[in-house]
Parts: sequence; C-alpha cells; structure tokens
Amino acid sequence: MKRKNHHPQGRATGAEGIVSTGRDAEVSKLLWKDEDRPFARIDVSRTRRRGFPEAIYCPGKTPEQVVSILLAQHESGATPVLATRADLAMLKYVLPRVPGSYYLKQGHLIVLGEGAAPLHGGTIHVISAGTADIPVAEEVAAVAELLGNAVERTWDVGVAGLHRLLDRIEHIRKANVLVVVAGMEGALASVVSGLTHQVVIAVPTSIGYGASFEGLSALLSMLNSCSPGVATVNIDNGFGAACLASMINRSMAVR
Amino acid sequence: MKRKNHHPQGRATGAEGIVSTGRDAEVSKLLWKDEDRPFARIDVSRTRRRGFPEAIYCPGKTPEQVVSILLAQHESGATPVLATRADLAMLKYVLPRVPGSYYLKQGHLIVLGEGAAPLHGGTIHVISAGTADIPVAEEVAAVAELLGNAVERTWDVGVAGLHRLLDRIEHIRKANVLVVVAGMEGALASVVSGLTHQVVIAVPTSIGYGASFEGLSALLSMLNSCSPGVATVNIDNGFGAACLASMINRSMAVR
Amino acid sequence: MKRKNHHPQGRATGAEGIVSTGRDAEVSKLLWKDEDRPFARIDVSRTRRRGFPEAIYCPGKTPEQVVSILLAQHESGATPVLATRADLAMLKYVLPRVPGSYYLKQGHLIVLGEGAAPLHGGTIHVISAGTADIPVAEEVAAVAELLGNAVERTWDVGVAGLHRLLDRIEHIRKANVLVVVAGMEGALASVVSGLTHQVVIAVPTSIGYGASFEGLSALLSMLNSCSPGVATVNIDNGFGAACLASMINRSMAVR
Amino acid sequence: MKRKNHHPQGRATGAEGIVSTGRDAEVSKLLWKDEDRPFARIDVSRTRRRGFPEAIYCPGKTPEQVVSILLAQHESGATPVLATRADLAMLKYVLPRVPGSYYLKQGHLIVLGEGAAPLHGGTIHVISAGTADIPVAEEVAAVAELLGNAVERTWDVGVAGLHRLLDRIEHIRKANVLVVVAGMEGALASVVSGLTHQVVIAVPTSIGYGASFEGLSALLSMLNSCSPGVATVNIDNGFGAACLASMINRSMAVR
Amino acid sequence: MKRKNHHPQGRATGAEGIVSTGRDAEVSKLLWKDEDRPFARIDVSRTRRRGFPEAIYCPGKTPEQVVSILLAQHESGATPVLATRADLAMLKYVLPRVPGSYYLKQGHLIVLGEGAAPLHGGTIHVISAGTADIPVAEEVAAVAELLGNAVERTWDVGVAGLHRLLDRIEHIRKANVLVVVAGMEGALASVVSGLTHQVVIAVPTSIGYGASFEGLSALLSMLNSCSPGVATVNIDNGFGAACLASMINRSMAVR
Amino acid sequence: MKRKNHHPQGRATGAEGIVSTGRDAEVSKLLWKDEDRPFARIDVSRTRRRGFPEAIYCPGKTPEQVVSILLAQHESGATPVLATRADLAMLKYVLPRVPGSYYLKQGHLIVLGEGAAPLHGGTIHVISAGTADIPVAEEVAAVAELLGNAVERTWDVGVAGLHRLLDRIEHIRKANVLVVVAGMEGALASVVSGLTHQVVIAVPTSIGYGASFEGLSALLSMLNSCSPGVATVNIDNGFGAACLASMINRSMAVR
Amino acid sequence: MKRKNHHPQGRATGAEGIVSTGRDAEVSKLLWKDEDRPFARIDVSRTRRRGFPEAIYCPGKTPEQVVSILLAQHESGATPVLATRADLAMLKYVLPRVPGSYYLKQGHLIVLGEGAAPLHGGTIHVISAGTADIPVAEEVAAVAELLGNAVERTWDVGVAGLHRLLDRIEHIRKANVLVVVAGMEGALASVVSGLTHQVVIAVPTSIGYGASFEGLSALLSMLNSCSPGVATVNIDNGFGAACLASMINRSMAVR
Amino acid sequence: MKRKNHHPQGRATGAEGIVSTGRDAEVSKLLWKDEDRPFARIDVSRTRRRGFPEAIYCPGKTPEQVVSILLAQHESGATPVLATRADLAMLKYVLPRVPGSYYLKQGHLIVLGEGAAPLHGGTIHVISAGTADIPVAEEVAAVAELLGNAVERTWDVGVAGLHRLLDRIEHIRKANVLVVVAGMEGALASVVSGLTHQVVIAVPTSIGYGASFEGLSALLSMLNSCSPGVATVNIDNGFGAACLASMINRSMAVR
Repeated sequence: MKRKNHHPQGRATGAEGIVSTGRDAEVSKLLWKDEDRPFARIDVSRTRRRGFPEAIYCPGKTPEQVVSILLAQHESGATPVLATRADLAMLKYVLPRVPGSYYLKQGHLIVLGEGAAPLHGGTIHVISAGTADIPVAEEVAAVAELLGNAVERTWDVGVAGLHRLLDRIEHIRKANVLVVVAGMEGALASVVSGLTHQVVIAVPTSIGYGASFEGLSALLSMLNSCSPGVATVNIDNGFGAACLASMINRSMAVR
Repeated sequence: MKRKNHHPQGRATGAEGIVSTGRDAEVSKLLWKDEDRPFARIDVSRTRRRGFPEAIYCPGKTPEQVVSILLAQHESGATPVLATRADLAMLKYVLPRVPGSYYLKQGHLIVLGEGAAPLHGGTIHVISAGTADIPVAEEVAAVAELLGNAVERTWDVGVAGLHRLLDRIEHIRKANVLVVVAGMEGALASVVSGLTHQVVIAVPTSIGYGASFEGLSALLSMLNSCSPGVATVNIDNGFGAACLASMINRSMAVR
Repeated sequence: MKRKNHHPQGRATGAEGIVSTGRDAEVSKLLWKDEDRPFARIDVSRTRRRGFPEAIYCPGKTPEQVVSILLAQHESGATPVLATRADLAMLKYVLPRVPGSYYLKQGHLIVLGEGAAPLHGGTIHVISAGTADIPVAEEVAAVAELLGNAVERTWDVGVAGLHRLLDRIEHIRKANVLVVVAGMEGALASVVSGLTHQVVIAVPTSIGYGASFEGLSALLSMLNSCSPGVATVNIDNGFGAACLASMINRSMAVR
Repeated sequence: MKRKNHHPQGRATGAEGIVSTGRDAEVSKLLWKDEDRPFARIDVSRTRRRGFPEAIYCPGKTPEQVVSILLAQHESGATPVLATRADLAMLKYVLPRVPGSYYLKQGHLIVLGEGAAPLHGGTIHVISAGTADIPVAEEVAAVAELLGNAVERTWDVGVAGLHRLLDRIEHIRKANVLVVVAGMEGALASVVSGLTHQVVIAVPTSIGYGASFEGLSALLSMLNSCSPGVATVNIDNGFGAACLASMINRSMAVR
Repeated sequence: MKRKNHHPQGRATGAEGIVSTGRDAEVSKLLWKDEDRPFARIDVSRTRRRGFPEAIYCPGKTPEQVVSILLAQHESGATPVLATRADLAMLKYVLPRVPGSYYLKQGHLIVLGEGAAPLHGGTIHVISAGTADIPVAEEVAAVAELLGNAVERTWDVGVAGLHRLLDRIEHIRKANVLVVVAGMEGALASVVSGLTHQVVIAVPTSIGYGASFEGLSALLSMLNSCSPGVATVNIDNGFGAACLASMINRSMAVR
Repeated sequence: MKRKNHHPQGRATGAEGIVSTGRDAEVSKLLWKDEDRPFARIDVSRTRRRGFPEAIYCPGKTPEQVVSILLAQHESGATPVLATRADLAMLKYVLPRVPGSYYLKQGHLIVLGEGAAPLHGGTIHVISAGTADIPVAEEVAAVAELLGNAVERTWDVGVAGLHRLLDRIEHIRKANVLVVVAGMEGALASVVSGLTHQVVIAVPTSIGYGASFEGLSALLSMLNSCSPGVATVNIDNGFGAACLASMINRSMAVR
Repeated sequence: MKRKNHHPQGRATGAEGIVSTGRDAEVSKLLWKDEDRPFARIDVSRTRRRGFPEAIYCPGKTPEQVVSILLAQHESGATPVLATRADLAMLKYVLPRVPGSYYLKQGHLIVLGEGAAPLHGGTIHVISAGTADIPVAEEVAAVAELLGNAVERTWDVGVAGLHRLLDRIEHIRKANVLVVVAGMEGALASVVSGLTHQVVIAVPTSIGYGASFEGLSALLSMLNSCSPGVATVNIDNGFGAACLASMINRSMAVR
Repeated sequence: MKRKNHHPQGRATGAEGIVSTGRDAEVSKLLWKDEDRPFARIDVSRTRRRGFPEAIYCPGKTPEQVVSILLAQHESGATPVLATRADLAMLKYVLPRVPGSYYLKQGHLIVLGEGAAPLHGGTIHVISAGTADIPVAEEVAAVAELLGNAVERTWDVGVAGLHRLLDRIEHIRKANVLVVVAGMEGALASVVSGLTHQVVIAVPTSIGYGASFEGLSALLSMLNSCSPGVATVNIDNGFGAACLASMINRSMAVR
C-alpha cells in the first residue's frame, strides 16, 4: 500500500485530504493502487463527526480492497472497524491477512479492534418477528454491542401468536430504544409501537416469497404504520438500524 | 326496452341466451338498445348458480344502463338487486326511475327488492381498523345483511391501540366468519387472524397516503400475512368480501 | 437443546410463555441456543386457537433450527407437524435426525406425526391450470389431506382448452370448497368461479415468463376477478390455501 | 392557415416534404402557424403506405390544431379523417368549423369524409366483457366500419357467466378476425382464443379499481395468455385494435 | 353524542374499553352514532403509553366525525388535540363547532387545547430543501412545538447551492435532533447526515414531477442513504417525523 | 404410462375427455401417473380448433412429463409436436426416449413429427434488432417454418444504423406478415411499421440491462407505438408470435 | 419584504449567506416572511457558478413567494429570471405585481429581465415527435433562446412517418446540439441519434395513455437507447434539457 | 466467415449494404453464418457518422459471434474496436482467436486496434461515489481514453464524507466534462452539479441492496436532480457515458 507523492492527479502530501466544512478540519486518508491513483479515501474524522467509524460494505469490493481499507482505518485509530455482509470467500481471504480480525458469524461481520467503551444506563432491545429474521436482527445486535450499547434480544414473537410478544412486553418497555426486525407483512413494528413508549426503529427484511417482493411488503407496512413513532431503514439494513439505535441510546446515556 | 327478433346478429327469440355448461340450462336475458343490438346480457341463472344475483358496478356505466339493468334483473326475479358505488349523479337519476329502489348511504348502494331470507345461526363480524375505513366496511356489512346474514360491526380497533381490539376479542370469537377492513399498513388482518379460529377475509382499503400507493401497502400486507387463514380481496372490494363471507356463513348455517 | 433457567432475559420457567389474550391462557415454549437466549418460541396453543399447528417455513432457517422446532412441536403434542418448502439439503439433514419424519415429494413437505382425524362429509377439490402448476397444487392437496380433509385433484384444465374443465365441472360442483391453482394469466379462477356455487380459493403461481413478473400477472387477475366469491392468497402459497380450505370445509363438516 | 415560402428553417416549396425511403416518394404537407414554422407535418402518403390515413389523437392538441389538421388531411385526399378521444370542449369547437364533420358518440370520434369502400367477404367480430367496456369496444367497431369492414358486436359476455359467451360462440366462429375488449382481470381474451380458430386482438381497458391499476391487470393477463394467437394492444387502444383487425381482414378479403 | 348502554354488540358501560396489555389498564372511549354502534374508539391512554395523544387524520373522515373525536379527546384530558391535513371545507365546518379550536395555516393543523409543557434543553432543527417543501416542514415544526419542543427552522438549503447549507451548518450542529424535508431527489438527507453528529429524520415530500413518481424518488434516496443514521418516514408524513423527533428530544431533555 | 379405468375421480374410458362447446365434440386425452390421477389432459382437438397443436412449455415440467406428453400428442396425431425452451438437461433426457425427435438448437425447440404442409403464396419476414435477439427471433422463424410457412430472416438492423434496415425495406415489403424482435428500447417495431403496409407482430426481448428491467422497456415501447398496426406479445414469446404470424399468413394463403 | 437583523436563527447581516466551497465566496440572499425567518435563500452566485441563474419552479409555491423570489433575483442582478410551469392563477397574480415581467405562452414561462447575450456560432435544434409534444418542446426552445442560443425547431416528425424526419436530416446535422422531445414510445431519440453526429438530449413527455404510464415508457426507451450518445432528462423536463443544451453549445461557441 | 453471393434473401454483392439517408452513402457489411444468412450487419460508416465505431455488447452473443464481429470491424478500418462486459468465458475464447486484442480488466473491455488520436485541450473527470462503483467508473474512464480523451479519476468521494469531494473540487472544476458514477441514493450527481459549471453526466450503478432495487434509486435521484445540467444514462452504462463525454469534449477541443 504505497503512496505516490507526485502524481498530477494528487495534491501535495501535507495538504491532502484536509478540508473544513465548519468548525473543524475534516481529514481523509488516501489508499493508492498501482502507484497512481487512490481507490479509497478513508474518512478519518468520521468517528469525531458522526460518533462511529466508517463501515466497509463488502459487496462490490475486491478482497484486496477490503483488506487495505480495514488496515488503513485501523491505523487511523478507528475502532472497532467493521466489514459488513462478508461472504465465505471474503472471510477466507481477509482474516489471515488482517491480524487481530475476527468474524461474528451471526451478523456476518468482520471485526477489527476493540469495541467502543460501554455506555452506562439504558439498553437497546432488538425484537425479531421470526426465526428466519435472526441474521438481520443479529447484525443489529452485534453492531450495537460493538458500539458500546447493552443489548437485549427477543426473537420469534411475530403477530401470528401475539401472546409471545405480550409475554415479553413489560421487559421490552424497560429499554431505551426498540428495534423491530420483520419480513413478510412486517406488522410487528406497528404492534410494538402501539404497546410501548419508545422510538421504534423498523427494519424490513427480505424474508418472504411471492408478493413480498423481496422485502417491499414489509418496507411499505413500516412506512405506513398507523402508530406514529416508527422510523424505517432500508430492507435488511441491520447496520443502519444499529447506528440509529446507538445514537439515540448514547444521547440518553451520556448525561 | 324493446327487443328485436330478427336481427342477423341475434338468435331466434326462444333459444336466445340458453346454453348448458353442465347439469342445468343457464339463461341470460338480453337488453336491447336502438333496436339492433344488446348492450347487456343479464345472467338470469346467477342466483341459482352462485347463490346471489349479479350486482351492477356503476362506474363506467351510463345512468340509463343502470336503470335498465336494475329493472331487468328485478323482472327476472333476482332479489335483492344491488348497484354498487353509485355516486350522487347516478343516485339522482336512478331512484326516481326505479320504483321501490332505495339508497344505503353508508355502503353507497342502490337496492331494489327484498333482501334474502335470513339465515339461521351464525354471524359475520366486520372489523375496521380506522374510522376512515368505515365506508368500505359498511359496504361489506350492508351487502352481507341484504344477503340474509346477521352482521356485527366493530369499528376503529387499529393496532396503534391494541387494547381496543382485545377488549372485543371474546365477542369477535363468537362469529362464524370475520372480515377485516384496513388501510395504511393493514396489520390488523394478521393480528385478528392470530387471535381467532375463524377464516379472516381481508379487505385492503385505499385509505392512506404517500407510500401506501392507494392501497397497495395494505394489499401486500394481507397477502403476506404470517398467520395462515387470511383470504384477500381487491382494494376497497367490500362487495366481494361480503359475498365470500356470506357463502361461508351460509354453508355453515344451512345444515 | 438445553434450557437456561436463570438468564436475565428469560422468565421463571413455570411462568414462561403464558399470557392471556382472552378466555384462555396462551402458551409458548422457548427453544434455547448457546445457553443464553431462545431462537424460537413455539406457539403451543396454536392448534387450539386456529385449528391447526404452526408450520415451519424452511427458507431462511438453518437445518439445526428446523430439527429443533420439529422436535419441540412434536413434544408439545402438535400433530401433524409440517415443514414446508424443504429443499434437498434440508431434507438430507432433517430426516435422519427426526425419528418418524417423512417426506412428501410432490408438496415439498417434511411431515412428522399423525395427520388430523378425518372429517366427515365434504371434499376439497384442487384444480390446476397446467402441469407446471402441479407442485403448488400438490402442496395444497397434501396439506389439506394431512389436516383431515378428503381431497380431489383435477390437473391441467387451463382455459386454452376449456372443454377439459367442462368435462369435469359436474364433478367439481360436488365439493365443499374449491382451490384453483394457476400461473400465467390466472384466468382459470374466474372461469371456475363463474361456473360453480362454491367459494374459490385462488392460488397464483410463479409459472410463466416475461410480463408474468413471477406471478404478479396471475395474482392481479385473481384479485380483479369479475366473479365475486374468489379469495386470493400469496403467489405459490399452497400451504395457506390449504389452511383456508380446511377451515371452511371443517366448519361445514363438524355440524 | 398560411404558408411561408422563404423562412430559413423551411425548404423550397416544391421540394418540401418529399423523400424516398424505398420505391416511392413519401410526401408530407406542412401546417404553418404564425408565418414562421410548421406545427404539423401531414403524412400525405400514409394511406398508400399503411392502408389507412393518419388519425388525430386529440389529447394534448389545441382545438385550433385539430381543426387545421382535419382540414389539411381532407384537402390531401385522405378519407375518412378521424379525430379520436374528442371531449365535449373539443367537439363544440371543431364541428362548427369543419364543414361535413360529424360525431360518433359511442366511439368518441370526430369523422370527416367518406368511409373506405366496403370490403367483400368476412367480418370483424368485436366482443366486450362488460357493459362498462362498451365505449372502447365501440371505438373498435366504429373505426373498423369506417375503414370498410363489416362488423359484428357482442357485448357483455364476461366469464362470470360463461354461458353468455358459449351461446354466441358458433356465430363468433364465422368471423375473419376477433377483437376482445375487457377490463378487470381480462380473462375473456384467453377464453375466446381457446374456443376459436381466429386471431384474437386483445384490448385491455382501464375499467376496474384497486389492484386493476387502471388496466395493468387486464394488460398483463392478455400478454400472458396461455392460448397462443392473442395479440395485445395498449390499454383502451380501440383505434389501434381496429387498424390491426382491418389490416388482417383486408388481406383476407382482397384476393 | 349520545351513548347507548344496552346494545347487544356493546359491553356493560363500566367495563367497556378497559383491557390490560401489561402493567396498566388501557382505556378506550366509544363514540356512538345512531344510538347503536360506535364509529370511533378513543385511545384514552395513548398519551400515557406513547407520550403524545392520538391525532386525527382528516382525509376519509366526515366533518361530523372529526368534531366528535376532537371533543371526546378533549374531554378525556388529551392536550393538545390535533387534526391533521384539514382542507378548507373541514376547517369551515369544524372551527365554529369546537370552542377553543384554532387553525395553524402553515401546517394545515386544527388544534384544540394547550400545547405540552415546554421541554428544557435541546432543540429540534427542521431543514427544508426547497420553498415548495415548506408546508410539510411546517407540519413538522408546528407539531413539534405543540409537543413542547423548541424548534429551529432552516428553509431552502437544497444541494443545488450547497453553500446555503454550509452557511448554517454550525448552527444546525447545536440541535438535539435534525429533521430533513426534501422532495425531488431527496439528496439533502444524506448530505446533512454526513456533516453532523445527530440522528437525521428524513421526510420525503411529493414535490417534483415525472420520474419523482409523487415522492418515490426522494423516499428511495433516503432509504438508501450512504450515511448511516438516517431514519425515514412516509412521504409527506410531517406529523410522524415530529413525533419521532419529539420522542428523541424528550428522552434527552428529561434527565 | 398406464391408464386407470376405474378410479372414482375419473370417468368411463369411452366418455372421457369429450365435451361440446359448440358445433363439434372437443376431445382430451388423459395421462396417468401412479395409476390414480392424470397429470395432463392432452387437448386432442387443438389442431382442429386453433390450427396448430398444443406446444409443451418445458420450464416447470419434469423430463418424465415432457416425454409422456410428447408421445401422447404424437399418438393422437398432432404434428409437429413442439417442446419449447428445452434446456440441456431436458434435451439429454428427452431425445433418447422419444424416437424420431430432434433438436433445433437456434430456437431451443424439441420437435417430433412432420412439419405442417407448406402453404402457398406469402412469406413471414422475421426481423431482429440485434445479434443478441437472434435466439428469440429464431424461435419465431423455426416455429413458423414447422407450421408450413415460408420464412425470411433479417437480423441485426437496429435503429442505431438505420440504413441497414432501409437497405432491406423493399424486400421486407414483399412479405405477408412481419415479426419484429427487439430488446433494449424496442424502437424497431414502430420504425418498421411506419415504413410498411403489413401487420407488425412485435416481440420484446429481455436483452438489455439496468432500466430495461428484463424486457419491460421494449414491451412498453411496443405497446405505445405511435404507428397503428403493431400487435404485441409477451417478452421473449417467440412461439406465440410465430402462431399469430402463421394464422394471418395462412388466412391469406388458403384462398 | 423586510429583513430582520437580530433574529436568533439568523446571522449578522454582513456575514449572512456567504461561504466558500472553493475558490470564490458563494453568496445567498435571504427572503424573510413575518419578520422572523427566511422562506427562501436566493443563490446569488448561481450564474457565476453554473452559467445561468436559478429558475423558479412554480408548483408548490404560493404566488406571493413567486413574486418575492422574482423581484429578489432581479435585484441581485440575475437575468433573465424565469418562473416555469406557471398556471393561469399564478400568471394573473404575478404579472401585475412584477414590473417588466411577461409571459411566454408556448413554454408556460414567466420572464423578467433581458435574455442572455447571444452566442456566436452554432444552433440548438429542438425536434418533437408529435404536435402534442410541442408545449414541452417550446419550453426547451424558449429557455434556450433566453439563455442566448440560436434555436431551430422541427415539430411533428415522429417515426410513424419517417420520411418527415429524413426530409429534415441534412438541416438537423448542421446544429451543435440536438434535443429530441417525444412521448408514447419515445423511439425518435434513438433514431435521430443513429442518423447524426451530435449529442442528443432526450426529453420524454407524459403524452400518451394506458401503458405509457405518464411518460415512463418514453423515459425507459430513451435510457435504453441502442445508440450511444443519448442523454436523458426527467419526464417533461424542458427546462433542464435547455440548460444542458445551452451549456454544451456555449462551450463550443465561446472559443 | 464466408460470404454467399446468390442467396435469394440477399442482394447483389456490389449493392449490398449501401443506402443513403442524407448526404453520404451509409455502408454496412454482412457477416454470414452457414452460407445462407447474415447474423450481423457491421455499421461500417458508424465512425464517420457518430464519431466512434460500434461497440460489441457481449451478453447474449456467442463467443463465435463476438470474434467474427471484432475481426470484421477491424477489417473495415474501425479503431479501436471494443467488446464490452466480457466475462471470463468470453475472454478466454476471444483473446487467443483475435490477434492483437487485449483486455482492460478494470473496465471489463476487450480492445482491438489503436485508440483514437489524442485530443488537445480539456479533460474528462470521472468521479465515483464509492469504491464499489469503480468497475463502472473505470469503464467510463477506459473507453474515454480509448476515444482519445485525457481522463482524470476521483474515486470514493460519496456525500457521507463531503470534505473528500470539497478537497478535490478546485481540481474538478478544471475539466471540460464531468461524469459522476454513483449507486445507492446517487446524491453525488446533484452535489457535484451544484458546485461546478460543467455538464454532469450521471451514471447510476446497481450497487446497493433492498430498496435500491438494483440501481433504480440512484437512477431516479439523478433524473430528479434539483440542479439543472445533469444528463442521465442507463444503470451501469459506463460505455454510453464515455461516448457522451467524449462527444462533448471533442466538440470543445477540435476548434
């Protein structure tokens, strides 16, 4: 991972990747390939700005790129560095080449570095409608834990057997933030929201078939919830839900 | 409403409109316009074949056509004859010209003739998620009553306040058939189905905005229900739901 | 499949999974993984509440999960326990590990336990438009039989050769409930409904290509049927159609 | 309707609008507005090339433009000149300003000039599923008649009462070409095609509601017909269907 | 607004509308029409459960219903009671009949009763991309203020002139929660999220034309934001965004 | 392929599969599996009724079923019997088991039996926009030839190089019927129609990427053609286009 | 249109609306309503940055807002200031209140101030497929002229009569940039691109019906053009096409 | 690759493939298979007419066809000849059979022949939002370079870390044309356009998941850009973007 100082497309080394969009100078770090142009610009100031570092979305990236970015982020001090949706081939290539990295199977996450310091106070409660939604729900839970949150999990409480949810509802009401993960008709988000006082972050999943149209049905349900206070993220976007939940939980915890 | 006997496109009067698709001869009755060709073929044997007469779907028909079809069906012995989704202009034209007809405002129905003989035994319970769903829910209820069924109504028990439904659930469990009418995310169909032992006929409504896409969200929710035993009809199709519910209720009642 | 009694997320063993949503206490049974949290909550009272036990939808579940749930449901007294849409890998893993389980090839079903007691009286008649629709149609038929219904099958009577249907129509009219399974333009549901007096449960299939959009064309056809009395389920949802048909048939038979 | 000879954007008068795309010179005639540029280029050789003249699709055109184009086409010898989908305002403006023009109410057509010479031999049979489909079906029939074809009409034979169609089927089999006009689920096209030996031109209509999505359901049904030999045109495109039917009928008749 | 005690569909007055879904008894209050059945069930315990009272979504409800629900909620102690998306006819009917009610023109809100007690501490900053997005943005701001929040507004800082946003960014960074309201391509949500440390609640609007498909373009943009920490609500759903923002702001303020 | 005479679901052998839907008795022939119910009903009278025999659409059928149906159709006298869209596995299974069958690689067709007797007179001209559209175009051409038509082929004359089409246009104008096969934007159908006097049968293909949405773009183009006289079939439906073209060509040829 | 200096949401007057995103300071000017917050931020440096001033998209803005923005932009020195898609009510309110403003009927534009200085050299040639596309095509032409370009217009050369285009093609080849405006199937863009050497800016219009889905068909056609060198803008986006064409033409002319 | 002179479908050799659509004779060259009909018509005059030769889109073509077309185009003098989207199997077949051909891995391009002569003057600057968008962005860059343009690349400057873009913006402003390549929400196109004075060619990519619907989200964003001057091409259409950029750059450079 060399770095070329004199390429016409680049800038002087010292000045590279520093710009101000307000109070502080924002920094980026360039990763070079073939000595001539950077294929990635690490957003070094992301943690300071957003509260968590950049994550690496694996699909569409080469294993070499993932390795480079993991190492560069780690060098920049970001921690934990996460690579999401890593498949088996990615996993086999990356782990041996990135010392200290490990794999969280449930959430399909490659992790490098320490998790964030634990927050004091509240928990994030992640709730899944079905057993098949667990991989996405675990992505939520694992990322939230790595960002320092205490996490509770309640799996398989879909509305076809509502007593399973009611059985847990008092416990669920104790959390700071709720994340509901559901495929098919996605009704669980509205039902949980109607029974509780917290923000509900709704994650539609692609579980289903036919007219679920790979998650569209659950997505529309959540966007159209008759219970105000439901915030929706993209289909299967466990990572994004975890960031949102962590931001809310952190804002409640830090004082 | 004359009838032309010798048009080359027609058939001999006696034989017209009679054909066998099985055991019995099926009969249709032609309505003629301008002396030369029929604009409608009344399905005279519909009640015998399906258990209820043809209904007249008003949109796209002229008021003159609606009057003619109402009168002709009545002459053929069908009762009650229903014209659905009649707007104000239709209403004002039709009622004075069709003796004995009246209007059911809640269900937007023009009715001619006696309702069907009352069934003994069970009830159909119609449940609406919101107050804005009542017009469709009333179309279900009114048509079901005209077809001879006892009907119960429970309005405004959407999942945003689940206790409203649970408060009624014992009563709802006593019916023979359930019809759930809901717009927005349509979650109520799954929830009711999960709590009861009956067939749930689900009617998505076009109530909602934005990503409800005029009922698509509720429709997809109902089709993807995680609780088996939910039968879906078209968006806002109160009439069809009432026919289905009545067919099931009737089959349980007649023995 | 151990069970952890003292986890903070759980509840005391005796009280676990019991809640009332009305007259009776509803019971669920938790399946634990890794000693710390349940990945499934078996809805033990489903049969009492809905009339048939939970089925296990295989896609998205691990083979280990499917084995656990099959065994747990069986222990809870549910019978028959069904796992739907099992592919070959699932099959090879599950059958040797679940004593007494067997495979119904036509319907892609893993079955454990006795079928429901036979109903007296009517039959469910399952009708497919084409030979390629048979796998879904067989899922309907097999599940309905396991739920205790007598089932008739009429395959390959699509509307391109209408006489094939008319040839069978007298026989079809003898059933209690009809299920029509069709892909492509799905016209068969309307045609059958127009010729008979029964409820028609319509199952669109994903058979087709191009503008069938994997079953959308047939689904829309069935929802828009000009013949009232057609109840639609999700694309390829043979299991759901069988449950609906069985609920209706049972309600007619028990008296 | 002046004509400007010397505008820099134009060409010399004699040479204007003549080009060869093969054997013959194709001619167009320019309509000028405000002395400076043409707003329309009448395709004078359309009848020679396609067998029927350009029709004027009214929506989106000003009444002044429709009058100009009608007159110009008539001067060029085209007959009959048709303006389709004329609403009331268009009608009131155009008829008094175009001597000899008249209105065909059923098909929403403004007509100028003689119909084409009658063809000898076969007929086009236009079949509508419902009474509400008649306006589109009449557009088919009226245009086909103006193009010189003998036309038969069979209205209101939707599949909900199949005997109505079977009652007419022997007569329908005598035509040269069939046109099926249907909204809602559009099943009639497949059914007619399966029962006859002719080409079926299928016209989906926007009649329906909810999941008919303004004709999409019928359109998809017709495109996915399980009976080969169904040719589909755009939703509500009665004019296009008439042209197709006339081209086929003409090719059979001229020999 | 009478109340019927002895209707067979109802329950004894004292017991009506009270059920427990956990710790506390949830209460609903029935509104009766025509002495025989309730058209609405006021969710009396909503404020206690969710932190804000039910709002009345006007479209699809009759003016009489809106008046009844406003009065009944007010009697139950809910405050402020809001009726959203009231058009002119609704306004003219409701205001004279509901003493103390008034209209917030910018947000299309009818308000009855005091706003919630002011929160201490942070603000909600509402940001609109264009001037045409202001009505939705004002719905956010007005509802948030009525729920007790301090609100800042920054209008017309769309990404076509990015300096307008950068000019305000230091000020925006001081808020507790951000709400971004944008139509067309909806890019502003991602850009604001990338520049700040707060949760961004993204409200797509139906402003746009052509391939904006009435807000779909902005909705998809927000769901696919490359910057984690964006929570999306339905198109034009200013009310829902305000509730979410208020829940987050409140949780940060109360300690 | 045994045949069971006494199954309760069947009918007496002699009477099986014969029904009248008009002038003639229509015949079907049942194929039995496992001695108890037929998986296919061969439409023996298809050729007499439609002019060409049933074709076997391979996807979704088992190789065993395809073999059985091929043999049964052949026994019934249908010729040529075609199985469309046969993949390699199907091919390898079927050919050795069906004596006399062969494979037309270009059109992915398995053929059994003689082609239809050659028609006298006109040709069908098949035109493809690109080289990648040839497989579908060859399906058109091969089926049309097997149905007895003389066929001309013009490949790779897409509108990006219009002179390639103009170079052939005089020759194209000599055919009886035109079939245009195009993916991507599908503009070729309108252009050919505008230049010629024949019916244009338009076949959209799934060739393209991105916003072609697997043929949707070409399909919509063809349905919206500004040139009347374009008849559209399903995406990639070469077989259907060939049947249509053959029906038209035959009707012109037989006199 | 007062201006408030001391509002807490604002900034000091001198510093307001100035920020650097590179070389130069970008300036915005705030429009205040009700003394307390700005409803618009005029992008004063737009012309310097993009080459043309901000245009005011009227739909969704109040007439008062349009007047304020027109006047403020004019004061800031922008010229010409354009308000697009002004309907009659907007027109009647705005013109009397904005001295010097006038209306270009063809393009639905309100104009204030001088057009840009004429460019030397090339022309932009705007081509419409049909007469009904002229309003959008005139928006292109009028805006391009106001931005200083010489514009040629060729209307009504749709591909149904290709000779009309070929007749003009030599003239069209002389322009610097081409803009093709077409609804329905939008084939003209590909055809023009295939015949010329220039960039083709393609504007789909909402002209059409049924499966044109309000411009979707033409939009997809243009995006999928088989001829490289076609750049697509939003449906009916005449303004955007004019800006693009002007940017290209200007870059060719200034040297 | 023989050539057949006397086939009835062909024309005399000398006259083949030459037609005039204006000033010059356009030439095409036929590639023959099996001695009897051409499978491709090389558009020999493409470079003269459009400024760049035909490219070969590999998907859907056989390797044999790709080899033939590459060789034939090269013989005709076109250079460079490009085959786009070549997968590994294509690559392995083609390279050994086409002397002088080579592979550009980044852009998935097979290249034969010299690149175009370098242009003098400006550059095309290609900008990608993410690392995963690089393959499409490299297709843009590589094709543009082969067409003679100087190209700059800036990768990974998505709006989640806006300073990365601002850091490069002065450099970006020096180019003649900008190409923005982005998946997910595609916001980068609007942001770049708002900050610069050049035409922005926007290339949506299929990078993303869930509600990105394989590039639809980015495509709609770019079409709805609030910043005029954005020209959109098909999803992942790097080749088309390069041609557009080159046409604009060339027109600025040649003078």
